[in-house]
Amino acid sequence: YKSLNRAQLSYDYLHTNSTTHEFLFGALAELLDNARDASATKINIFTIDDESLRGGFMLCFLDDGQGMSNEDAGDIITFGKSTKRTQESQIGMYGNGLKSGSMRIGNDFILFTKKGPTMTCVFLSRTFHEEEEIDEVVVPMPSFDVTTRRPLLRSPRDKEKHQLEMKLITKYSPFKNEDDFQAMFNRIEGPSGTLVIVYNMKLLDNGIAELDIRSNPHDIILSNPEGLMPERKSFRAYTSVLYVDPRMRVYIQGSKKVQTKRLANNLYKPRVYKYSSSRFKHRSEMDLKKTQEDAKSAENKAREAESKARLVNLEMKLAASTNKDQRAELRKIQQQAAEYRKDAMLKKMAAERKLKLVREPKTLNFVFGMNIDNRQQDGMFVYNCSRLIKMYQKTGPQADGGVFCSGVVGFVDVPYLVLEPTHNKQDFADAKEYRHLLQAMGEHMLQYWKDINIADQGVSKFWENFGYISSNWKEMPSMDQKFVRKRAMQVPVAIQCDLCLKWRILPFSSNNLGKVFPDDWVCTMNPDPSHNRCSAPEEKLNMPEGVLKKAAKSKEDKE
Amino acid sequence: YKSLNRAQLSYDYLHTNSTTHEFLFGALAELLDNARDASATKINIFTIDDESLRGGFMLCFLDDGQGMSNEDAGDIITFGKSTKRTQESQIGMYGNGLKSGSMRIGNDFILFTKKGPTMTCVFLSRTFHEEEEIDEVVVPMPSFDVTTRRPLLRSPRDKEKHQLEMKLITKYSPFKNEDDFQAMFNRIEGPSGTLVIVYNMKLLDNGIAELDIRSNPHDIILSNPEGLMPERKSFRAYTSVLYVDPRMRVYIQGSKKVQTKRLANNLYKPRVYKYSSSRFKHRSEMDLKKTQEDAKSAENKAREAESKARLVNLEMKLAASTNKDQRAELRKIQQQAAEYRKDAMLKKMAAERKLKLVREPKTLNFVFGMNIDNRQQDGMFVYNCSRLIKMYQKTGPQADGGVFCSGVVGFVDVPYLVLEPTHNKQDFADAKEYRHLLQAMGEHMLQYWKDINIADQGVSKFWENFGYISSNWKEMPSMDQKFVRKRAMQVPVAIQCDLCLKWRILPFSSNNLGKVFPDDWVCTMNPDPSHNRCSAPEEKLNMPEGVLKKAAKSKEDKE
Repeated sequence: YKSLNRAQLSYDYLHTNSTTHEFLFGALAELLDNARDASATKINIFTIDDESLRGGFMLCFLDDGQGMSNEDAGDIITFGKSTKRTQESQIGMYGNGLKSGSMRIGNDFILFTKKGPTMTCVFLSRTFHEEEEIDEVVVPMPSFDVTTRRPLLRSPRDKEKHQLEMKLITKYSPFKNEDDFQAMFNRIEGPSGTLVIVYNMKLLDNGIAELDIRSNPHDIILSNPEGLMPERKSFRAYTSVLYVDPRMRVYIQGSKKVQTKRLANNLYKPRVYKYSSSRFKHRSEMDLKKTQEDAKSAENKAREAESKARLVNLEMKLAASTNKDQRAELRKIQQQAAEYRKDAMLKKMAAERKLKLVREPKTLNFVFGMNIDNRQQDGMFVYNCSRLIKMYQKTGPQADGGVFCSGVVGFVDVPYLVLEPTHNKQDFADAKEYRHLLQAMGEHMLQYWKDINIADQGVSKFWENFGYISSNWKEMPSMDQKFVRKRAMQVPVAIQCDLCLKWRILPFSSNNLGKVFPDDWVCTMNPDPSHNRCSAPEEKLNMPEGVLKKAAKSKEDKE
Repeated sequence: YKSLNRAQLSYDYLHTNSTTHEFLFGALAELLDNARDASATKINIFTIDDESLRGGFMLCFLDDGQGMSNEDAGDIITFGKSTKRTQESQIGMYGNGLKSGSMRIGNDFILFTKKGPTMTCVFLSRTFHEEEEIDEVVVPMPSFDVTTRRPLLRSPRDKEKHQLEMKLITKYSPFKNEDDFQAMFNRIEGPSGTLVIVYNMKLLDNGIAELDIRSNPHDIILSNPEGLMPERKSFRAYTSVLYVDPRMRVYIQGSKKVQTKRLANNLYKPRVYKYSSSRFKHRSEMDLKKTQEDAKSAENKAREAESKARLVNLEMKLAASTNKDQRAELRKIQQQAAEYRKDAMLKKMAAERKLKLVREPKTLNFVFGMNIDNRQQDGMFVYNCSRLIKMYQKTGPQADGGVFCSGVVGFVDVPYLVLEPTHNKQDFADAKEYRHLLQAMGEHMLQYWKDINIADQGVSKFWENFGYISSNWKEMPSMDQKFVRKRAMQVPVAIQCDLCLKWRILPFSSNNLGKVFPDDWVCTMNPDPSHNRCSAPEEKLNMPEGVLKKAAKSKEDKE
C-alpha cells in the first residue's frame, strides 16, 4: 500500500499527548516504569542546576538497566510501538510513556543510552522545533562506538547526517560542545543503562517551576501542595508505594534511598479476601482467542516462507546456479523464513501460556486493614500489574462519609487481563469495569468491617485506644509515648533488604520507636535470628483470610 | 532536515490514544464538538442495525456543518494538527478528538464529508490493519466530484490509487459495493456536512455492547449504569448540559431533539460571584508574548518573500526576459509572498486581540444555586470554553460530607487562557491549577451558603419545605401536588427557542407542572407577550451578585 496516505504526527501533537498527565508525579513515574521494565536495579533521580534553563535546573533519571541499542532507540520515536506488550511482568504497553511523561515535565528532553558496543542519544526538543518553525517531529539520534567514541556511520551520507545532528544538539541542548555532550555518556558507569534529562521545566501560572527541588534536598515536592495526601505532594512518598513488589532501588538526589513501603505491613489487623468474577473469564478468553489467531497466522507465514525458500533452493540446485546475486537472494529468503519461524514459535508459546492462564481460576486478592497511624488517610489503593494507578479511592460506606469503615485502607493488584490502564496510568481505560471493581471492594470492605468487630466494641473507643482523643476526624493521633508504643506494637516494622530485596519483619522493640533505618539495611542487621540471612525465605504475611457472606450476589455478578 | 529521523505512528498507537477516554460519553462528545466547531446547526446521532458487525449496529453522527475539502480531510490523519487552535470560540484544539473518540467507541470508522464541489471519504479501519497485519497507519481517502460523482484524479497514478482505496473500503467497511458506499454521501442532504460512522463497537467484558440502544428508543444509555447520575448514564441527559451556550440542535435516533438545559435556570436562589486572580494574568501575558513573537516572525517572513519577489521581477524586466519557466517561477514567488503577507496580517490581528484581552480584567463568574428538584445531585459543574469538563465535583464543605452546603450546585465557564483541558476533555491538564480553582469555588460556595441564610432558618426545615420529608439524604422529594407546585414556583421553566436559540423563561402556570414541551417549541408559543417573538432580546438572568467577604485572602492569591 505504498501509494496510500499514511497517518502523520505534527509537532503540536507533542503537547496534545502530554496533557494526558494531569498528575505531575504520574509523568515522572513513566520514567521510573521504563527503568523498571529495563530490569534496572537502581535509578537515581537528580537535578543539575543551570540558570540558563527555564526553571533553573534540569531533571535527570539515571538507571543501570539494559539500555537500548540504536535500533531499540528508533522505536522510541515510533509512537505506540512497544515491544514490552507481550511480557506480563512489564508495565509499559502503550509505547508512549517517555514521550508523554517527559513532555509533560519540560519542554525538551535528551536521552543517553548504552548497550553492548553502542551508545545512542535521542534528542526530542520543542525549543528546536519552535525556534526553527518545524511542523513535523524531527529527532536527531546520533550513535557512537562505546570504545572509540567515534560516530557509528554506515554510509558516507551518514557522516553528513551525524554532523547535522550534533550541530543541532550542541545548539539547542544544555551541552554546548562535544566534550560536555560525551561527558553525559560517562555518567552511565556500568556496561549498560540510560540517562534521561528533561529541561526547560514547565512553570506554574505564577511563574515558578512546578517541581520544588529546593525546600527539601532529599525530595522533590510539588510547589504549592497544600492539603494533599503525602503521596500526592512528595515524590519520595509516592515512589515508596509505587510498586507492589519494588525490585529497583530508587534514589532521589543521589544520596538517600527511597524506603519502600508494603501496604499490608503498615496496617492493623490486615485480612485478605478472594474475589472472583465471571467477567474476568470472558476477557481472558477473548485475549486467548486473539493470541491463538496471531499464533496461527504466524505459523502460516513461517510455512509459506519456508516452502518458498525450499523451492528457490531446489531450482538453483537443478540449474546448478553459481550466480552470486541469486545466492544472496536465496540467503535472504532463508533468513526471512528463519525469522518467521522464530516469531511463530514465540507466538505459539505465548498462546500456550495464555491457555494455561485461562484455565486457572481468576481471582483477585483484596487486602484490608486499619490505618491506625493516620486514620484520615484511608481508601482503596488500586494497582495494575504491580504499578499504582489509583490511591485513596473512597468506596462503599467510605464514599458516604461518617465513621462507618473510615480508617480502612484496602488494596488490590489487578492484572492487565482484568483491567487496562488509560495511557496516563492514573486511571482505568474502562470506567464501568473499574467502577464494578470498586463496588466489589466496597462490599468486601463492609465484610471486613464486620469481621474485625470494631462497631460492636464502639468506634470511638477503638480510636481512643490508639490515641485519637479529639472528635475531629482529621486530627493526628496523640504522640504520647503510651499511644506511640501501642500503635507500634500492633503494626510491626517491615523493611526491605537492600541486597536480596526480601521483606523482613522486625520483632517489636521499644528502641525502634521513631527510628530511621539506614538506606543500606540488609538481612544481617535483623535481630530475628531466623531471618538474618538473605538466603532465608521471606516470611509469609500472616493474614487471616475472610469470606464475603452475602445472601444473594449482585445482579452484575450473576450475569 | 530531510536526512534526519522523523517521529512515526505505529498501528498500536490507535489503541493507546483511545484509552484516554475512560468515560465513554466523553468519546462521543468529541464528535459533537467537531460538528459544533464546524458551525453545524444540527447533528443527528443515530444507529443502523447490522447483525454482521460486532455489537449489531453502527453508530452514526450526521451534521450539517461546513464539511471538509479533500485538503481539510488530509489534516485529520495528521495527529495533533488543528487549524481551530487560533479561534477562541472553537472547542477543538488538540487535533485528536475524532481519532481518540471514535477509536474508543469502536474498532473502525468511515467518514463522509461534503464541501463545495468535492466529497471525500476517510477510512480508518483497525479491522483492515489487523487482517492484513499492517504496522503503519494507512488511511484510504478517496475524493469525488459532487455533481458527476466521478473520482477526483489529478494524475494517471491517482486512478490506480483510487481503485485500491475503493477495493479496501468495499472489502472492510459495511458498504460492500460502490452504490451502498455512494448512498452514504446522499445522507448529507444540504450543500455541506459530515457523516461519521463508527462500527464494530467495543464490547463490555460480559460480551454485550457498551452502549445500549435498545432499552430506550430515544436515547443511548450505558449498559449496566447502576447508581450513576443521569448525565453519566443517559447520553440525552449528558448532551442537554454539554455546552453553556447550545448553538446546535442535537437529535438522538432522528426523531427527538435534546432539550437543552441551562443550569442557572434550574436552581433555587441562584447567585453569581465574580472571582479574579493574578494567576490568570500571568498566563495571559505569557500567551500574548508568544502571539506577538509569532506575529513578528510572520511579518519578517512576509517582508523577505516580498523583497525577493521584487528583486526577481526587476531582474527579469532588466533582462527583458520572456522565458516561460522564469515567468512561472516569478508567479510562484509572488504567490508565496502574498500568502506569507496574509498569514502575517492574521497573526498581527490575533496579537492585537490578545493585547486587548490582557488589558481586560480577568474574572470568572461563579454561579451557585440550590438544586431543590433533586438535592443529592449537587456539586460543581466546570466548563471550559463553553464545553462541560467536570460535573458533580464536591468541593469545600461538600467534600467533607454533612448537610453544610449540600444540595448546592455551582458552575463556571473557564476560558482556555485560564485552564486547558486534558486531551480527553474530562479533566484539566494541570491538576494543581484546577485544584486552585475548585478551592476558590469552595470558598465562594461557603459565602453563598451564608448569603442565602439557610442555616439560620434550619437546614432540615428548608428541605422539608420543599418536600424532603425523609431524613435519608438520598431519597427523592415528595411528589405530593403541594410540594411539586412549591418547587415549580421557585424554579421557572426555561426553554430554548428552536429557531433563534434564545432562552425564554415561561411565566409560572399550574398547567406546566410535569409538562413536556414540543421539540420545535418557538418563541411564538411563549405566553409572555414581551418575549413571544424571536426578535425580542433574551431576558437577562435576574441573578443577585454576591461578594466574598474574607478578612484575609489566602496565601496563594496574594502571591
